[in-house]
Amino acid sequence: MSEQNKPVVGVIMGSNSDWDVMQHAVAILKQFGVPHEAQVISAHRMPDEMFGYAESARSRGLRAIIAGAGGAAHLPGMVAAKTIVPVLGVPVPSRYLRGEDSLLSIVQMPKGVPVSTFAIGEAGAANAALTAVAILAATDDALAAQLEDFRAKQTAAAKAMTLPLE
Amino acid sequence: MSEQNKPVVGVIMGSNSDWDVMQHAVAILKQFGVPHEAQVISAHRMPDEMFGYAESARSRGLRAIIAGAGGAAHLPGMVAAKTIVPVLGVPVPSRYLRGEDSLLSIVQMPKGVPVSTFAIGEAGAANAALTAVAILAATDDALAAQLEDFRAKQTAAAKAMTLPLE
Amino acid sequence: MSEQNKPVVGVIMGSNSDWDVMQHAVAILKQFGVPHEAQVISAHRMPDEMFGYAESARSRGLRAIIAGAGGAAHLPGMVAAKTIVPVLGVPVPSRYLRGEDSLLSIVQMPKGVPVSTFAIGEAGAANAALTAVAILAATDDALAAQLEDFRAKQTAAAKAMTLPLE
Amino acid sequence: MSEQNKPVVGVIMGSNSDWDVMQHAVAILKQFGVPHEAQVISAHRMPDEMFGYAESARSRGLRAIIAGAGGAAHLPGMVAAKTIVPVLGVPVPSRYLRGEDSLLSIVQMPKGVPVSTFAIGEAGAANAALTAVAILAATDDALAAQLEDFRAKQTAAAKAMTLPLE
Amino acid sequence: MSEQNKPVVGVIMGSNSDWDVMQHAVAILKQFGVPHEAQVISAHRMPDEMFGYAESARSRGLRAIIAGAGGAAHLPGMVAAKTIVPVLGVPVPSRYLRGEDSLLSIVQMPKGVPVSTFAIGEAGAANAALTAVAILAATDDALAAQLEDFRAKQTAAAKAMTLPLE
Amino acid sequence: MSEQNKPVVGVIMGSNSDWDVMQHAVAILKQFGVPHEAQVISAHRMPDEMFGYAESARSRGLRAIIAGAGGAAHLPGMVAAKTIVPVLGVPVPSRYLRGEDSLLSIVQMPKGVPVSTFAIGEAGAANAALTAVAILAATDDALAAQLEDFRAKQTAAAKAMTLPLE
Amino acid sequence: MSEQNKPVVGVIMGSNSDWDVMQHAVAILKQFGVPHEAQVISAHRMPDEMFGYAESARSRGLRAIIAGAGGAAHLPGMVAAKTIVPVLGVPVPSRYLRGEDSLLSIVQMPKGVPVSTFAIGEAGAANAALTAVAILAATDDALAAQLEDFRAKQTAAAKAMTLPLE
Amino acid sequence: MSEQNKPVVGVIMGSNSDWDVMQHAVAILKQFGVPHEAQVISAHRMPDEMFGYAESARSRGLRAIIAGAGGAAHLPGMVAAKTIVPVLGVPVPSRYLRGEDSLLSIVQMPKGVPVSTFAIGEAGAANAALTAVAILAATDDALAAQLEDFRAKQTAAAKAMTLPLE
Repeated sequence: MSEQNKPVVGVIMGSNSDWDVMQHAVAILKQFGVPHEAQVISAHRMPDEMFGYAESARSRGLRAIIAGAGGAAHLPGMVAAKTIVPVLGVPVPSRYLRGEDSLLSIVQMPKGVPVSTFAIGEAGAANAALTAVAILAATDDALAAQLEDFRAKQTAAAKAMTLPLE
Repeated sequence: MSEQNKPVVGVIMGSNSDWDVMQHAVAILKQFGVPHEAQVISAHRMPDEMFGYAESARSRGLRAIIAGAGGAAHLPGMVAAKTIVPVLGVPVPSRYLRGEDSLLSIVQMPKGVPVSTFAIGEAGAANAALTAVAILAATDDALAAQLEDFRAKQTAAAKAMTLPLE
Repeated sequence: MSEQNKPVVGVIMGSNSDWDVMQHAVAILKQFGVPHEAQVISAHRMPDEMFGYAESARSRGLRAIIAGAGGAAHLPGMVAAKTIVPVLGVPVPSRYLRGEDSLLSIVQMPKGVPVSTFAIGEAGAANAALTAVAILAATDDALAAQLEDFRAKQTAAAKAMTLPLE
Repeated sequence: MSEQNKPVVGVIMGSNSDWDVMQHAVAILKQFGVPHEAQVISAHRMPDEMFGYAESARSRGLRAIIAGAGGAAHLPGMVAAKTIVPVLGVPVPSRYLRGEDSLLSIVQMPKGVPVSTFAIGEAGAANAALTAVAILAATDDALAAQLEDFRAKQTAAAKAMTLPLE
Repeated sequence: MSEQNKPVVGVIMGSNSDWDVMQHAVAILKQFGVPHEAQVISAHRMPDEMFGYAESARSRGLRAIIAGAGGAAHLPGMVAAKTIVPVLGVPVPSRYLRGEDSLLSIVQMPKGVPVSTFAIGEAGAANAALTAVAILAATDDALAAQLEDFRAKQTAAAKAMTLPLE
Repeated sequence: MSEQNKPVVGVIMGSNSDWDVMQHAVAILKQFGVPHEAQVISAHRMPDEMFGYAESARSRGLRAIIAGAGGAAHLPGMVAAKTIVPVLGVPVPSRYLRGEDSLLSIVQMPKGVPVSTFAIGEAGAANAALTAVAILAATDDALAAQLEDFRAKQTAAAKAMTLPLE
Repeated sequence: MSEQNKPVVGVIMGSNSDWDVMQHAVAILKQFGVPHEAQVISAHRMPDEMFGYAESARSRGLRAIIAGAGGAAHLPGMVAAKTIVPVLGVPVPSRYLRGEDSLLSIVQMPKGVPVSTFAIGEAGAANAALTAVAILAATDDALAAQLEDFRAKQTAAAKAMTLPLE
Repeated sequence: MSEQNKPVVGVIMGSNSDWDVMQHAVAILKQFGVPHEAQVISAHRMPDEMFGYAESARSRGLRAIIAGAGGAAHLPGMVAAKTIVPVLGVPVPSRYLRGEDSLLSIVQMPKGVPVSTFAIGEAGAANAALTAVAILAATDDALAAQLEDFRAKQTAAAKAMTLPLE
């Protein structure tokens, strides 16, 4: 895939302070050459923009939306309320509760409006992006091959790990 | 105050299954004769109605909004994002996590968009309503007197409690 | 979609005692006419079958796997380790810890092997199925229309809710 | 509003070590020009002064009391027991439990004596102050306009956030 | 000791609904013949009575105060703030958080104002009373002998326990 | 009281790494001139010494035992199992769980064998010592006066606290 | 193995109320014909018997000790402090905290004195017994074959599970 | 025992970043001269190698497997699903949840497939190794003597601890 193409995955986050975590999602998308966009959209400070983003997501060609937020993390769930495009939620670690609040605020969605939730922090951001790739790969054999290759290299890297045993 | 008047307090909740808890807020408002309205507004299933409700709240004369929700409880925070009317959030107990998720989803709001949060369940619903009364009482001496009287009776009832000591 | 077709979504669970929760996923798939299969595959008692299931998933045409498990819930993560098909994990409530253990065991996956995680219990099962539908709908306009319709009816049902106010 | 006026909001905290957090409440009050006072009142070391403060709050013209405390945080609830002026409680992070103890000690008030509770730490302190402003704004159109303006600027600042995408 | 004597241990609780738990404290005091009194004193609804109780405790001859409370359990800590008589706090189980809130609200007291805290519920109530007995026993050899005897019988009862092994 | 006297309070801890916390107990005892002893007694590495310590405590004249421990903190409860002298337990913060494990391991004692439990860390250590002082003060008017004076000075110090308001 | 033989596994628990859980350990030992003994030994009410039991365990021929306890569950850890025989700890669910306290009190042992910990409740009791069997099986080929057979049948039973799909 | 011998204990971990913790297990095995092997085997990145390792463990002569993992820690449980050799699980502290997720993912195994679980972090790693030693010692009197000696020295070291009392 070419990054010059129209974005098929959107990455949004509640504040630019979430970038430390969410850049790990963008890095994966870049690595796979998935056309994407990334921006700050705050659920609480930019509610109208959030709704506009969600409402236009499908018609703009987005096939997945990765949303990171911390604390009372309403961004993923509220975007999900306004679109049928799969929303992939990333709990950003919070200062005092380490992301437990973010996790519960994202994962405990009511029946009818789903958010796919991932691990707290960097691992979750990367895995949300890998899930977006997997969704796209279902109808894109080249991308599927890339994903299989990514997994194979990951396995090889793990196998190559050594311990400092004397 | 007369209940015939235009509502000054709005009571909203995510589902009619929240009524068991939220009726304790309405009961307090009735007891104080505070004009109010109560209805189901689901953050996730009725997002546009939710925003419409919040946007018009101040001009319609609401002085406080009591919002109850469970699980990934986004209703209080998203209403607060769209109005400067004080939002009083009530964590409704959830089935598996007993309201811990509801509490964190409501109370851990980011700087700039406040939600006043109360105890999980019935006590929280009643106390949200008492806070609405207190807000109104600040500029309504009759209501303030009612509230002082409510407290005095409450103290008298506590003092009258006896234990089954033989 | 016709249910007679080859399954495109697999629903698996660690024990038939998980059926009370996981039937909510199957019900959604039926409602949308998504060809699916459902069976017990225990990570700990049927590890080879689990790996076999995961390895053949993509070639058998599965586009999503919904996996429910409780306690030290290893099923979703181990299936995800063996396939690039998106795995949607449902934390089944556990007897003593109410699903907190299930949730953490499913959601806290390491970087590189993602599991999309949903709410504890019935709501999570239904939402995992709705996410499977959304993944399929991305390349199936009829299914997308069904999903939009499902959401619209859900909104209408919420709007029609009334409270027992006298 | 002029800061020279008689205080309408009181900010109290259990120790001067709480100032790091509670100064964020005072900063908001200053920004809005709300006449206020701030002082240390310890529930456990100055119980009589605490009761005296609460008892005289309404007659001294206070329209809201912001109370911050950590650990077994009794200050907000005990002040609330002695006045009908709205009490806004701020959980100050504790050393070992990060404010989970403070949060539960403040929010889980019994029916009849409400405390509006906010997020743990700085965000909660600022939001308590914004809630005090909102309470005052209900009967002060100029302050309401200031609050609307604050929100608008906050939205504009969020919109202006950029990410270090190359 | 004779129960006809002036009370040396006070048992207080926030509501008569706490009696189910707190009667286990009273039962122990009766069993040991320790002169005692028991009554409802609500921290939040009877704050002045609470302070009066604490202030007069020492001069009235109380050697220990057993205080049970649930939720934002302020009773033990606030009594302790007003007397140097040892306060023994019993976390009463709360409806939604099972006493975790009660426990933290009681045990996490700041340096300088101690509350001895016991287990959540009946066991804690009984153990608070046994601690009161132990405090008195330090200067009462007869009571110490009674306490040694209680322990010995308890050990004998445990030793006599059998299991339904066939 | 003279420190030259035979110890009436014993301070024990599971390891000398607990000294950072437990020295706050010893400091209070010194401040009040209470004869005391302090030493390492590990429940798990010195079980026989622990039992010997507990068994001889009363006859050696100890009126209270302050026991600090972390993690699976068995020291306070096992000492309490072997003596009727009041045991005051201090949860020492643990590396990964910050003392939550220590707190529960100490406070959740079964009916019949009480441990008075205090806050996690330094505050708890100091308060355990103040409770030991209070127990002694019940039959020592001079010590009671010292304790009243300590409280008065503490109140005065709190009243003297100022905030860096400009 | 014959049950008539001298016990090689000891099953102990803090109270006969723990039998509901701990019988699942005994049932497994019976199923495998492992000579065993089961009795109540309370850490807090029978400390000397507990130490005696642990001290004599190895010389009496015990190869593993299964110890179940709830709340501040000191039994497994204190037995482990007095013997090098492997101790297998089972957290018995507690009334208010559902076994979270039992789990942490058992598993968080300090370096040097290990307790093998299992799941809360029945599953943990059975698995502790299966671990005892596995320890014995290491030097008993017949028992190893039995254990392999147990696993195979367990797998077969899982494979035979069906779902009520129409 | 000679380290030159064929390994009887296997130490595995999900990543070489777990070495900081798991080296404490290896250090104990070295100290006791127990022949062992240590390597990285990732449940999620090397699932086939993991199964191969587990399947061959018994025939290769392993008498215990020590498995450390963090987050959704599936390694111990999945290895246990494929072998009857005792698996000793070590929860490695995770970045945001400090090992609470690791602990629950390891300890809450379903009935039939046991994992012996130890404390979070270094202490747990060392104790898992000591348990492996204890298992071997049951049929190796020299090793048993070594273990008794280790304990005796540990007790002596604890007894020799002094506090910086002046």
